[in-house]
Amino acid sequence: MLLTRPQEVGYLCPFTGAGALLISAKWDVLITDSIHAEQAQRECPGLNVHVGGGSKFLAGLLKGRGIRRVGVHSDHVTLSAWLRLQDDLGPRRVVAVADLVGELRLIKDAGEIRTMVRAVKAAEAALRALLSRGRRAFVGRSEREVAAELDYRMSLAGADRPAFDTVVATGAAASQPHHRPSGRRIRRGEAVLIDWGANVAGYCSDLTRVIFTGRIPPQLAEIYEVVRQAQAAGARAIRPGVTAKSADAAARKVIEQAGYKDKFIHSFGHGLGREVHEAPPMAAGNIARLRAGMVVTVEPGIYLPGVGGVRLEDDVVVTSRGRRKLSSLPTDIKQMTL
Amino acid sequence: MLLTRPQEVGYLCPFTGAGALLISAKWDVLITDSIHAEQAQRECPGLNVHVGGGSKFLAGLLKGRGIRRVGVHSDHVTLSAWLRLQDDLGPRRVVAVADLVGELRLIKDAGEIRTMVRAVKAAEAALRALLSRGRRAFVGRSEREVAAELDYRMSLAGADRPAFDTVVATGAAASQPHHRPSGRRIRRGEAVLIDWGANVAGYCSDLTRVIFTGRIPPQLAEIYEVVRQAQAAGARAIRPGVTAKSADAAARKVIEQAGYKDKFIHSFGHGLGREVHEAPPMAAGNIARLRAGMVVTVEPGIYLPGVGGVRLEDDVVVTSRGRRKLSSLPTDIKQMTL
Repeated sequence: MLLTRPQEVGYLCPFTGAGALLISAKWDVLITDSIHAEQAQRECPGLNVHVGGGSKFLAGLLKGRGIRRVGVHSDHVTLSAWLRLQDDLGPRRVVAVADLVGELRLIKDAGEIRTMVRAVKAAEAALRALLSRGRRAFVGRSEREVAAELDYRMSLAGADRPAFDTVVATGAAASQPHHRPSGRRIRRGEAVLIDWGANVAGYCSDLTRVIFTGRIPPQLAEIYEVVRQAQAAGARAIRPGVTAKSADAAARKVIEQAGYKDKFIHSFGHGLGREVHEAPPMAAGNIARLRAGMVVTVEPGIYLPGVGGVRLEDDVVVTSRGRRKLSSLPTDIKQMTL
Repeated sequence: MLLTRPQEVGYLCPFTGAGALLISAKWDVLITDSIHAEQAQRECPGLNVHVGGGSKFLAGLLKGRGIRRVGVHSDHVTLSAWLRLQDDLGPRRVVAVADLVGELRLIKDAGEIRTMVRAVKAAEAALRALLSRGRRAFVGRSEREVAAELDYRMSLAGADRPAFDTVVATGAAASQPHHRPSGRRIRRGEAVLIDWGANVAGYCSDLTRVIFTGRIPPQLAEIYEVVRQAQAAGARAIRPGVTAKSADAAARKVIEQAGYKDKFIHSFGHGLGREVHEAPPMAAGNIARLRAGMVVTVEPGIYLPGVGGVRLEDDVVVTSRGRRKLSSLPTDIKQMTL
């Protein structure tokens, strides 16, 4: 099987550079370029490292070992790569196979969970450092400055990089779940929604909190409490054997009963691991059953265009008996008020 | 034509979120999800925004407008997306077309160049801030700390994010062109190779400098001067009408004549724009001719495993008469010695 996605190559071997992995029953090869060859030898001392690339090179490698067929996953290979492989290997020698590595990646082992806890801790340490400085870490500064400082503090706390573009959304901008931080300065009394996460050793965290920089606007206080209860209800529904959609439904019910049905405009959560969005989607349509070792986000939200928005997001691992929250920042509104 | 790559969607319309663009002679549609709908309406007031996704949704949109065929680029569409489109639209209604947008993106207009200059300035301002603090910005700090501060300063100078993972490589580690910053502390007298860039409004810069924190090891001083001359020779070869490979050859000749032929282990440069590596490759095999408006990196290097490495990288736009360097940090070894 030929694996070309960095998340898959990095999942199956310790190589952190750009390359492809060719795995078979008796023989594994890491294919990379001359730029990464020294790094590949050092990171993967037990693996055959070949410098090269392209379908002709691959065909030569396979023929040299007498291997007749190679599998690729059709969600990952491009149409043109598929056609080139067929040209150079022969049409019946390239086989579309199931997402075998994706299936493995669904269930995180103890080592992966430990790495994800490090990613959560790096993200939490960064926000705690900002919160410890009180209002002056927010009021009078631009959304961009707050995001830049949060990213910097994540790096100092052990992150290799942010897991995604940090969202800092003030006031009405918080009604856009993926708002890009702007140059607008945060005013006293405004709510600040922050959605951020760290990538540590290839694994992501993904958290959201809303911080109040003074008196809490009554409408936001109301939806904050609804979202908090929805998050707790959805999280309580998580255990092995239940469908992903049932957790979404448990959270959604709380929001609907509070009268905000059409203001919760995304799903309850998503799988988390080497990618910030991976399987399983914690969504209304997903009848797949949760299994111990899956890590998912729990992140309901209520968005009021022109007013603002509240989302609370934590990272949860499904355990053999239920669930365990990996994140530990409080959601209590008083503790999030500066 | 259906465009799904963020770089292409963002090239053709001002939308900065996740979505797909369907363009035809008379009718253009931006397809996005409910999370990005408000943002899409605001960023693209003149465009039809539809919330939805998937090939069935697309088939419905097309049938509703009487459009019979849709083009996709085979380098961008996955095999499974291609098969699903054929299922839902009919096999002869999905057509693999040339990389039309890639062809447009090759030539940057004045507005794009202005944005790229902002990306260069943000990156340069960050390094200048570190250099202005002298040795103490480097000596005694870890590679990771230096990289984190550089990223932070780029953000404060206007970067939306680093254009790629910043490389900070000290001592022998600099022989790996894509070394990942480690926790190793920089010692006085060591050379520090930094490869960094900013992304501003969707466009990238990409620079490399080597900083000396004391007395310069003679072997490094020698290869530094060879690389500097190779960079100048390669850059001088850049003008409209010459092949990309001729610039590579001009730089490579200098390095070969100095006796380091097999130590320049990558190509002379690459195109730069919305992606940090895009067309044209400035490589030995590329017979494509340079045209005014192309932006490329010029980045020869010499790598001595176990000893260290030197690479110097600037960003250059091809003009109607020759070339113009977008970056302005000196390469003079004295100015890079603290």
